[in-house]
Amino acid sequence: MNTYTQRASAILYKIDQLASISEATTGITRTFGSPSFLEGSRQIRQWMEVLGLQTRVDTLGNVRGRWVSPMKKARTFVIASHMDTVVNAGKFDGPLGIIMGLDLIEQLIQSEQPLPFHIELIAFSDEEGVRFHTTYLGSKVVAGSFDETLLDKKDASGTSLSDVIQAMGGDPGALVSEAIAPQDWLGYFEIHIEQGPVLYEKVIPVAVVTDIAGQKRVEITFRGMAGHAGTVPMSMRRDALCAASEFILIVEQLAGSQSNLVATVGKLTVADAASNVIPGEVVCSLDIRSNDEAVLTKAYQSLRDACSQLGRMRSVVVDWKLIQETAPVGCDTQLTNLLATAIAESGYDVVRLVSGAGHDGVPISQVAPIAMLFVRCFEGISHNPLEQVELTDLAAALKVADQFMKKLIRL
Amino acid sequence: MNTYTQRASAILYKIDQLASISEATTGITRTFGSPSFLEGSRQIRQWMEVLGLQTRVDTLGNVRGRWVSPMKKARTFVIASHMDTVVNAGKFDGPLGIIMGLDLIEQLIQSEQPLPFHIELIAFSDEEGVRFHTTYLGSKVVAGSFDETLLDKKDASGTSLSDVIQAMGGDPGALVSEAIAPQDWLGYFEIHIEQGPVLYEKVIPVAVVTDIAGQKRVEITFRGMAGHAGTVPMSMRRDALCAASEFILIVEQLAGSQSNLVATVGKLTVADAASNVIPGEVVCSLDIRSNDEAVLTKAYQSLRDACSQLGRMRSVVVDWKLIQETAPVGCDTQLTNLLATAIAESGYDVVRLVSGAGHDGVPISQVAPIAMLFVRCFEGISHNPLEQVELTDLAAALKVADQFMKKLIRL
Repeated sequence: MNTYTQRASAILYKIDQLASISEATTGITRTFGSPSFLEGSRQIRQWMEVLGLQTRVDTLGNVRGRWVSPMKKARTFVIASHMDTVVNAGKFDGPLGIIMGLDLIEQLIQSEQPLPFHIELIAFSDEEGVRFHTTYLGSKVVAGSFDETLLDKKDASGTSLSDVIQAMGGDPGALVSEAIAPQDWLGYFEIHIEQGPVLYEKVIPVAVVTDIAGQKRVEITFRGMAGHAGTVPMSMRRDALCAASEFILIVEQLAGSQSNLVATVGKLTVADAASNVIPGEVVCSLDIRSNDEAVLTKAYQSLRDACSQLGRMRSVVVDWKLIQETAPVGCDTQLTNLLATAIAESGYDVVRLVSGAGHDGVPISQVAPIAMLFVRCFEGISHNPLEQVELTDLAAALKVADQFMKKLIRL
Repeated sequence: MNTYTQRASAILYKIDQLASISEATTGITRTFGSPSFLEGSRQIRQWMEVLGLQTRVDTLGNVRGRWVSPMKKARTFVIASHMDTVVNAGKFDGPLGIIMGLDLIEQLIQSEQPLPFHIELIAFSDEEGVRFHTTYLGSKVVAGSFDETLLDKKDASGTSLSDVIQAMGGDPGALVSEAIAPQDWLGYFEIHIEQGPVLYEKVIPVAVVTDIAGQKRVEITFRGMAGHAGTVPMSMRRDALCAASEFILIVEQLAGSQSNLVATVGKLTVADAASNVIPGEVVCSLDIRSNDEAVLTKAYQSLRDACSQLGRMRSVVVDWKLIQETAPVGCDTQLTNLLATAIAESGYDVVRLVSGAGHDGVPISQVAPIAMLFVRCFEGISHNPLEQVELTDLAAALKVADQFMKKLIRL
């Protein structure tokens, strides 16, 4: 039996192998359905084959490998993460969970114990949603909640999702048959980098995820009055950027006053901007997240009210448009406690984190109990070529995950 | 003798004629040296010829028409404005002052009184500085302060200012000889639209300009730390857009607390902006103006200090770069009082305004006493096809300007 460090080393090697497959020469880009994506998919399937799993690529391009239990009426435990990436991504976001899954299953196979459940390792085909501006395409198919109206959705080049499926050899009509039926699920486990700085700051290798935050995304337009920066007295101005700035500080203050809330204005554009023109129109984004639906709803309403009010005070017209919303999702209490125990027994402090980023566990949670393990990443940086995970943290995560799987088998 | 309204009508007709000469089909665009610019220049020169002025186009393309006094040792009084425009401009900014000048001179000629000074009507070739990102090229040549190093400056297509002068048939070496010598100046008078909303709000047709504001233009970069909008707790953020927003409100507040100060953040760009990414870098402009050098300097320093301080408080690096500065310029007291008296005697309230926008009077003020008359424009809108001046306001401005010229002759 190899040591955790040796196993972690082998995992890093595979992560680098997968990272070398990219549409771009800098960073890593493997968006859904691209030639690099398909090459990465073949590589993952080959790794599954080497392990002896029953492999297939499903209609949406998810790579699925099963290790079948000899037990009658065994249910399925899914270990998964996603193989698609954002543009100019790092190498850990997604691949880490798939490749660690391969290793975990290899250990179980080598232990030669008969498993009381089937294990299915899934490399989801589209979590990031870059190509079609969607969320969780791959995992929604597996959860049985895929929305077929998306098939007509087109990418930037005019190719529809239906076209992409057919180009990969699939029949869009077969998507519905790819789901794991609700009664067949035992549970779902995903290992993922934290994508935030909490573990890095605490100097702790892993954390158990308690919830995946709900999110509301808003687009706000402030319409004031453009004018000459030299000739309009301050008292006569209706400056759209000043209005937006006041709103941004209100957002920061509200989110900063509560521990289970984050809110961000990430995009801001001044229309027809010039240094000598008073901004007449500003469009900005707002992203609010919380693990607590009530907190999320209240923050959303407070910010909407504050925005309307400052618009009235400043004679600036505010156009508030809710773009997208997802409800918070709780991880399964039993699986999460099992994972917390595994962390404690492996000798690490148990850090419980809310995932502010979305994950495939969101749609899966509708049909199965889910658990997630976060692994520390350098400075919390993700979606960036600088994404980095230490070998020792990978080894720690392996130790914890081994423990977790052993406990799961004994349940 | 025509009534003021008839004269105003004729002026509007010429303004429309000039406005029909444009590089673009929407709005008006006649940037320095373009075919439309040259066509506009020929039109203006022809109008001067019809009046019987001695005309010429100087080396920088300024159109100059002289009515010579029979008096020995007569000095020159310049009536002027600019004939170039911004891109997608209105029809009054610039042409108004030239075409009203034609009318004023026509009245003087018709009165058949011998003038105690020469009059030179000048249509400056480049005030807006669109093509070479410069200021007051035309009037600097006439003031004798043209900076010859600008000759090598290139426009967006790589053509140098020297090339443009030669293409217009001029010899760049002759620029220095185009100046009116300091001892030959009697004064300078420009009629221009206000480009601000004060007269529109007050419902008064004209104002006398007391000063042209000084200006400092700054480019500020805020460098914080980008991060995932869902995963970085509020307390760990170094959000560059929050820092910029705090600064923008400080700018608004400081300028709002003083009557002779305006300050504007007109441009703001978030680097690599995405709705789910905490802004890591923001670049914005700052434009500060005042007629009082001490106020301008103090505001500049206060804002710079406040910006540094908020950068330190937020662990955001601030890069402050002064891009351009001009000192405030006072209009001549005697000429300005003459103009104010002309306004009062014409039956209008005397409104004294600081010009927040720059004008050709800035370089001219170094060599001659200057005066400026502002004419009300619709909602203060300028640099926009919606720029509008009422016929009755034009008539009022003519009445005032006639009075002013009569008083000047009697001085």
